[in-house]
Amino acid sequence: MKLYDYFRSSAAYRVRIALNLKGLAPAREFVHLRRGVQRSEGYRALNPQGLVPALGLDGGAVLTQSLAILEFLEETHPAPPLLPADALGRARVRGIALAIACDIHPLDNLRVLEYLTGTLGVSTEAKDGWYKYWIDTGFEALEQQLARDPSTGTYCHGEAPTLADVCLVPQMANARRVSLDLSPYPTLVRIDGACQQLRAFADAAPAKQPDAE
Amino acid sequence: MKLYDYFRSSAAYRVRIALNLKGLAPAREFVHLRRGVQRSEGYRALNPQGLVPALGLDGGAVLTQSLAILEFLEETHPAPPLLPADALGRARVRGIALAIACDIHPLDNLRVLEYLTGTLGVSTEAKDGWYKYWIDTGFEALEQQLARDPSTGTYCHGEAPTLADVCLVPQMANARRVSLDLSPYPTLVRIDGACQQLRAFADAAPAKQPDAE
Repeated sequence: MKLYDYFRSSAAYRVRIALNLKGLAPAREFVHLRRGVQRSEGYRALNPQGLVPALGLDGGAVLTQSLAILEFLEETHPAPPLLPADALGRARVRGIALAIACDIHPLDNLRVLEYLTGTLGVSTEAKDGWYKYWIDTGFEALEQQLARDPSTGTYCHGEAPTLADVCLVPQMANARRVSLDLSPYPTLVRIDGACQQLRAFADAAPAKQPDAE
Repeated sequence: MKLYDYFRSSAAYRVRIALNLKGLAPAREFVHLRRGVQRSEGYRALNPQGLVPALGLDGGAVLTQSLAILEFLEETHPAPPLLPADALGRARVRGIALAIACDIHPLDNLRVLEYLTGTLGVSTEAKDGWYKYWIDTGFEALEQQLARDPSTGTYCHGEAPTLADVCLVPQMANARRVSLDLSPYPTLVRIDGACQQLRAFADAAPAKQPDAE
């Protein structure tokens, strides 16, 4: 297995956490997003989307999309489980993960920010406002959803980390990087803190990666 | 079961297709997105994200996020299967579904377009350009991915519809609604045509819903 990775990609960060939780340490190749390596012919031949992460398998197949990779890891390396045993619990965990992966993160992706400032000529201030707005919008709903639900435990769902936490922690790191005020989100802050106590999460942090700048 | 639906929501459209494929016909409540009903207190109490679809279960739980709902339907009503039997095939199907659900659709969501024209003061022309740009960007990669892969069949993956087709067809409808030139995407057009032959897909189309305008 080989992970195509970039230290600051929060989608890649999710996969790094899951690999650590499952005790897997594939080879890694770093795709420098700020330098545009993801748009090179070589990388696009592997992943036409030109995004990271991608996971190359020993048989030659290349998996794309972080959540598809996470589900694949869950199916092929089921211990420890990152999805609950019951269908309702799995739907809840996936719902939280997708609320981040679909409705927060893609809006704040590098290519989107570049379109805003480049093609649309939006100012840096307005771009930063956009970035924070979509995190706040998503976090407000998540905070409410998690705070009111007795299924929320030490982690997003009960007493063991799941794919929901795997998606939450990188999004919290993005929020901190733009100095977002996290005080309206005490439940998210508490869960993020609990995750950071686990080595699998801490070791996957952007600053700890070999390609960190 | 009760589906919170809106005829033009392409995320709800996905769930309608899957329900039809599985022969399920839950009660439906229509949430008028253009009139902002999704932001009402009543709806937000059900789904703090204020998005459709949501799926209310008989036990009282409310599922959110279309892909989490699709996976739940797949687990609780496995026939006919909308995911392949092998982990690699499932990862491929999920990867296609997520490329649409994460990297195309959220960027062209109503609330995002409203932010562009409202908060950022972007012109209608530039907003339309944005809309098409993200579909084109996603479709270029998808076309390449599907055209070159022998796993592509009559449908995105082999000879039976999967969650990939369930996500593709509503995105094709969105592209047509803004008169996007689809000629660069012959594989997507062919697969969409094959899906439209199936009643489960045809009956889920926005124009056929009771709340269509």
